[in-house]
Amino acid sequence: MSQAMAELFRRITLGVYVVGVGGARERRNAFTAAWVVPVSFQPLLLVLSINPKHSSYQLLKEGGGFSVNVLRRDQLELAAHFGGPSQTDKLAAVAWHPGKTGAPLLEDVLARFECEMTEEHPVGDHVLIVGRVLDGVLLQPEAEPLIYRETGDMDGASMIFPDRF
Amino acid sequence: MSQAMAELFRRITLGVYVVGVGGARERRNAFTAAWVVPVSFQPLLLVLSINPKHSSYQLLKEGGGFSVNVLRRDQLELAAHFGGPSQTDKLAAVAWHPGKTGAPLLEDVLARFECEMTEEHPVGDHVLIVGRVLDGVLLQPEAEPLIYRETGDMDGASMIFPDRF
Repeated sequence: MSQAMAELFRRITLGVYVVGVGGARERRNAFTAAWVVPVSFQPLLLVLSINPKHSSYQLLKEGGGFSVNVLRRDQLELAAHFGGPSQTDKLAAVAWHPGKTGAPLLEDVLARFECEMTEEHPVGDHVLIVGRVLDGVLLQPEAEPLIYRETGDMDGASMIFPDRF
Repeated sequence: MSQAMAELFRRITLGVYVVGVGGARERRNAFTAAWVVPVSFQPLLLVLSINPKHSSYQLLKEGGGFSVNVLRRDQLELAAHFGGPSQTDKLAAVAWHPGKTGAPLLEDVLARFECEMTEEHPVGDHVLIVGRVLDGVLLQPEAEPLIYRETGDMDGASMIFPDRF
């Protein structure tokens, strides 16, 4: 574990997202993620890095897609809710509807994207999921997005980062 | 071209970096990039999405690595300098030294990372470069990082984004 390494990596500026997965046989989940980046203009592609030990990884593959719901600066509590343990049905607490791929889309967010998974590449302890952006909407153009660094160590990253390179 | 699509994608929060490449036979370059994201804790990996038509892509492959220099909020001019056309030796204008892979490290930046390229994956009109983080340093912990959205349309992204999904 390393607070210093976590501090360094917090200088890679990231947003905070609720990523929705699943849809096949009504099995769905959503989780908080920050490792999301655009990677291509034509076609429009996003990459998500996901821990394959996470149950949402299987749900993502079952459904063949994922949603990226952009959180506002005042939605830290929602980030914590979807960042917590998976025992309960976290989606029961919020308004959502299924998108084109079946993955859940949150109603009250700044913006959202719907992606179809096109490929995956294992990288270290995660897997890169490449998603073709099928649709997207800017719901609250005046709102400020939540920035990952502003969440402090909410996700416990300092306990996961190694202490050396 | 689409201003609306660029506006939507600006809600994926990103930083602004000068990525240094090259080192083999003293051939080096650096360019402004925003599509950088951490993707693994163990080992520490970053992903950079690069346009393979960019001359820096060849330099990156020659040198086998790249540096990620994190810009401060007051370094918009530096972002523009390294985002401009490649005819001139852009590095001549700044203080830098070669890092472990030979790629240039800028002296006056918030933080920086040195990466060895471990793999690449073509994705749409870009290529994902996976970099193992060999070293990194937080030089100016009190400084605020430059946020991509704050650069407006400096990089002309609204002229590159397609107008539909």
